[in-house]
Amino acid sequence: MLRIDHIGVAVKDLQSSTKLFEQLLGTPSYKTESVASEKVTTEFFEIGESKIELLLAESEDSPIAKFIEKRGEGIHHIAFEVENIENEIERLKNEGFQFIADHPKKGADNKLICFLHPKSTNGVLVELCQSIY
Amino acid sequence: MLRIDHIGVAVKDLQSSTKLFEQLLGTPSYKTESVASEKVTTEFFEIGESKIELLLAESEDSPIAKFIEKRGEGIHHIAFEVENIENEIERLKNEGFQFIADHPKKGADNKLICFLHPKSTNGVLVELCQSIY
Repeated sequence: MLRIDHIGVAVKDLQSSTKLFEQLLGTPSYKTESVASEKVTTEFFEIGESKIELLLAESEDSPIAKFIEKRGEGIHHIAFEVENIENEIERLKNEGFQFIADHPKKGADNKLICFLHPKSTNGVLVELCQSIY
Repeated sequence: MLRIDHIGVAVKDLQSSTKLFEQLLGTPSYKTESVASEKVTTEFFEIGESKIELLLAESEDSPIAKFIEKRGEGIHHIAFEVENIENEIERLKNEGFQFIADHPKKGADNKLICFLHPKSTNGVLVELCQSIY
């Protein structure tokens, strides 16, 4: 694991939350991106070597809509940048960690991503991500 | 805001969670510290320029015990390193953000800390921290 790539935050209203995080972090959002596979629209802020990723559900069956229904707005996941996502999945499976999907898929921000199951990580939803060059 | 200083994770069993995060992050914990003011024991892991801070309640009236009772184990807060915490509190109050306490106090890891109220930050518990040299 190289660094915290980003913290994902589930929000109900992307426009007002973007303004709020611009004020909080003192820096403007630098990118908006839709991720069809996750049915979300994202908004990104840079902070040091990491990012804050706001997540807005684009449909009622989006994982983010379900999260907000159950727990309200707030921190949804933590993503770690890894050098080689396939190797890291292999290493973690051998340690006994469970994954939501067996193989990485294309996520936001030009990355391959894969989520661990929070049951095996103390209730923390952990994403691994690897930049695609 | 300079960077994500750490992500705080509420846990029920420090020994097993420390082992779990050592396996997950592929790095050993580098410090254990009790913080009397918060009634918690903490365990730290380095990841890039940031840290993961495991938080174990030391009594039933610890904020961490209350958090776990309500939401279960998981991500508790995100902490941002700032250059001057008094100036940052002043700036954010002027932007309309609410704080849990009006002035910073001594936290773990030799820092001055202050929490914003999650009502004013999209359900995210945000900590500001400044290193004491």
